This record gives sequence, C-alpha cells and structure tokens, in this order.
Amino acid sequence: MQGINRDTEAGIFSFIGSARGSWKVQSMTTVTGRSLEYVSAIDVRAGELNLIEKSSAAWVITAALSHARYTTRKEKVELADSSLQTGNPDFDFAAMIPIKKSAEWWEMTQDERRRIFEEDSRHIRNGLAYAGIIARRLYHSKDRGEDFDFVTWFEFTSSHANAFDTLCELLRSSEEWKYVLREIDIRLVRDN
Amino acid sequence: MQGINRDTEAGIFSFIGSARGSWKVQSMTTVTGRSLEYVSAIDVRAGELNLIEKSSAAWVITAALSHARYTTRKEKVELADSSLQTGNPDFDFAAMIPIKKSAEWWEMTQDERRRIFEEDSRHIRNGLAYAGIIARRLYHSKDRGEDFDFVTWFEFTSSHANAFDTLCELLRSSEEWKYVLREIDIRLVRDN
Repeated sequence: MQGINRDTEAGIFSFIGSARGSWKVQSMTTVTGRSLEYVSAIDVRAGELNLIEKSSAAWVITAALSHARYTTRKEKVELADSSLQTGNPDFDFAAMIPIKKSAEWWEMTQDERRRIFEEDSRHIRNGLAYAGIIARRLYHSKDRGEDFDFVTWFEFTSSHANAFDTLCELLRSSEEWKYVLREIDIRLVRDN
Repeated sequence: MQGINRDTEAGIFSFIGSARGSWKVQSMTTVTGRSLEYVSAIDVRAGELNLIEKSSAAWVITAALSHARYTTRKEKVELADSSLQTGNPDFDFAAMIPIKKSAEWWEMTQDERRRIFEEDSRHIRNGLAYAGIIARRLYHSKDRGEDFDFVTWFEFTSSHANAFDTLCELLRSSEEWKYVLREIDIRLVRDN
C-alpha cells in the first residue's frame, strides 16, 4: 500500500468515546492541560453523528482529513513513498492523541511555524524515521470549533510499541511541543 | 480601529440565507460552478444554529475566523496596520463571496500555493492596496465539510463599490483563480 496519496481521502470523521467500540482503551494519560473523561472504548466513523448517536457517547471529537500544512514537495513525496497505511488488521495497537496548541503558536506566521516545526523540531524527519513501522493519520479540528486543534492517530503492531514511545518522547522534548496547551495520550488495542 | 489583530477574534460563524436578515441581497451571481439558491437576505451570527433555526433558512454556511495561512510577518503587520475593521455602520454595502478551490490546489504544498497566491497573483499586495477603503474578513470552512472552502466577506461604503469591482476583477484574472471551482458573488445592502 505504499505511495498512496492520502490527501485525496478527505472528509470529516467522528472519534467516539464510549463503553463500546472497535478499539479498547488500554490507558488514557493527560500529558498536558485539562483531562478528557475516561472511556473504555473508542470508535472512528466517517461523517458526523446525529443527535441520538451523540447522546449515547461520553464524548465525540470531529476532525477532517485535510491537506498537508508544512511539508515541502520533496518531503511530501518521501512521506507518500515510505508511509504505511492505517486500517491494516495486523496493526493490533493504536494511539489517539488529540492536541491543542497555544494562541501564541497560531499567531505566528506560516514560515515562523514551519521553522519551529521542522528546522528546529525535526517533526517531519522524526516521523519519516518511523514511517515504515508506524502508520499515521493527521486529522484537523481547529476550524471546527472543537476543544482540540488536531487528532493524531497512529497504528502499529504490539512489537513496535516501544518504538512508538520513543517517537513520542522525541516529539514531546522538541521546541514545537512548548506550544502544546493540551494533550491526551490514549493507547488502544484492537477489539474486533 | 487600526492595528487590531483580528486573528484573535477566533470562532465559528453562521452565514444564513433566508427571507429575513440584516443584509438585503442586491444581487447573487454565480461566477463559477454550481449556483446557490437565491435568497433575499443574509444574516451573520456567531456560533452554530440549532436544528429549528436551520430548518427556517434556505441555506446555512458555517465557517471559522482562523489564523492567516500565507502572509509573512512583514505582510501580516502591514495588513494589521492598514486594514479597516468590519462592523462599522457607515459601511452600507457588503459582499459575501463563498469560494471553493480545486483538488489540484489543495494537493499542492504550502510553498507551491504561496508562490501562486502571492508571487504570481499578488493576492496580498492587491488586497493591501484596497485595505484602507474595503474592510475584509476571511472565514475558513474547508475542514468543516462545507461545500465551500472559504467565505470571504467585505464591507465598504457605496462610494467605493466601483473600487470593489476593480479588486474582484484583479483577483479573478489572476493565476490563483484558475484553481477556483465554485464562486458565488452576493452583493448586499445594510438593512438595519
């Protein structure tokens, strides 16, 4: 499944926290900021929920698969060539990490943010180093009035859980992460 | 009201087309793509509507006041220093122009889009030239699953209606506009 351009898979997705779902919650850790109500399972569905569906969930975060914001053409091609696709049933582990960045971050201009994102924090480089073992999807929620700006979603096999922890440590110790205001790290095990 | 950073006024807004509203529709012109149902008035409200409010409107477009995507620091400061604020009751005319760009546009990387947006099309330069007579607000709707990627909103006095037409011509003849897939030009007169 290499080389597929995931930007073409646009659309809105709902991340549903409740008692049932295809991903069983292993742990929910508040890394920064206000916590999120604990749930025992998470489901991800294309589209938005109706009012009845919403009322039976502890929380729902909607977010969009959207265009890449910081990659250059060279990086975009490199990522497309080396990235794994999510949705492979062999990936028994997942992580959902919703993130909110500070007003200071968003007040910066694009080039100022890119400098911190990549030149200082090597976000794309670090991601690329793990692209062959950790499948990744980035969902945007900032323009949706959600409490989080992004929902980051990762899938991998249990054998790469330690590598995923290392990637998280790398990112969290970066200059970019000084602008993270809220972050919840939800670890998941496939349950379907 | 000069020098105010409008990026801090974030939030979701609803653009409501119906028979009543504080802006009377003077004309609705489909510039490109599929038309939008004709309405006689438009209202703009902070936040989203409930189901009952929605059902009494011909259409509702929601969009977010969000961070600037293409401006450099220098341009951002220049715009903040020279831009008029919307909401001045002296502005008796307005234009609401929802726009959708092509998949080809969004598939480009940030630097590729910036090159077309400013270096080729002088979008910011042209906007700046009119910033002292035409108040402008850009709302983002792409990540909201709306039919349009943006809602652009302009306010001015009737004496500057011709200048606004010239600005529209400038933008529509640019390289950037080749990527516009759908555009509705709604001209409005204050009615409150």
